[in-house]
Amino acid sequence: MSKILKEVIISNEEYAKDFNTKGELQAAPIKKFAILTCMDARLDPAKFAGLSEGDAHVIRNAGGRVSDDAIRSLLISYKLLGTKEWFIIHHTDCGLEKFSNAGIDKEFNLDSKNKIDWLTFNDNEKSVCEDILKLKKHPLVPDSIKIFGYIYDCKTGKLKNVPLVIF
Amino acid sequence: MSKILKEVIISNEEYAKDFNTKGELQAAPIKKFAILTCMDARLDPAKFAGLSEGDAHVIRNAGGRVSDDAIRSLLISYKLLGTKEWFIIHHTDCGLEKFSNAGIDKEFNLDSKNKIDWLTFNDNEKSVCEDILKLKKHPLVPDSIKIFGYIYDCKTGKLKNVPLVIF
Repeated sequence: MSKILKEVIISNEEYAKDFNTKGELQAAPIKKFAILTCMDARLDPAKFAGLSEGDAHVIRNAGGRVSDDAIRSLLISYKLLGTKEWFIIHHTDCGLEKFSNAGIDKEFNLDSKNKIDWLTFNDNEKSVCEDILKLKKHPLVPDSIKIFGYIYDCKTGKLKNVPLVIF
Repeated sequence: MSKILKEVIISNEEYAKDFNTKGELQAAPIKKFAILTCMDARLDPAKFAGLSEGDAHVIRNAGGRVSDDAIRSLLISYKLLGTKEWFIIHHTDCGLEKFSNAGIDKEFNLDSKNKIDWLTFNDNEKSVCEDILKLKKHPLVPDSIKIFGYIYDCKTGKLKNVPLVIF
């Protein structure tokens, strides 16, 4: 058994020991909001945004980008499970800001026929605004959903608001 | 300002106060692994799998499914940031097991021309196996990556291994 797998299983056994009333929680998020953020290992959204189990949906991908799959998740989040506010949170020192799509294609030896849109970006604040606008313009996202943009600072743990600007 | 936004900001200020040496963490996950799991509010992967900030990538979407976007994230995770083991973790009482694609299309009044693949499933263990096989067959995923399948039990907090079966 891999060392990592062993560690995960032991940690899980410890966690389950004190599970108590958490087993009674329902699927719909108690605080009716969702966070979309990056998969980055330094980010712990439950800790940096003060979530307990049951409070909010957390969606994560490379970059915290509003991909088609993030839209699928957010639509399910509001329509089937009642969230009313969404946080889009990118972060400083993100891998997707350091690489270009062409650069990542090259890492995988992908030729021009097999290019992938890795959703890289050059300007962090702009990427947050683009992602928010993508949601606001989406035909299945109602105007009633409040959408907030933030950048998490990996050096300080602080969230910084990104005002919505159309670039 | 919304009540939720205020709560998130206050929680974040508290978190950042004791940030200490976490600001020195690098992007590459210390424990070289990634977890793909569901956005469900009841799941806290850092808690149920024993992660500290910096340890592992966490990717989350509706269902914890191996969508194209989850593949994008996992490929970046291994190729650019060095993960070697991946956990695919679905859970009991998942919304995607209770609904069908047609049922969710209906919630959104989508006609047959605008159907969306919501990645619903009927059989939880089967869905984990299908997702693992999708990764194992992917041309850009090397055989060297270890992939583990689990189901998280929302009633107990326990992870249950899903042996890889081809259905």
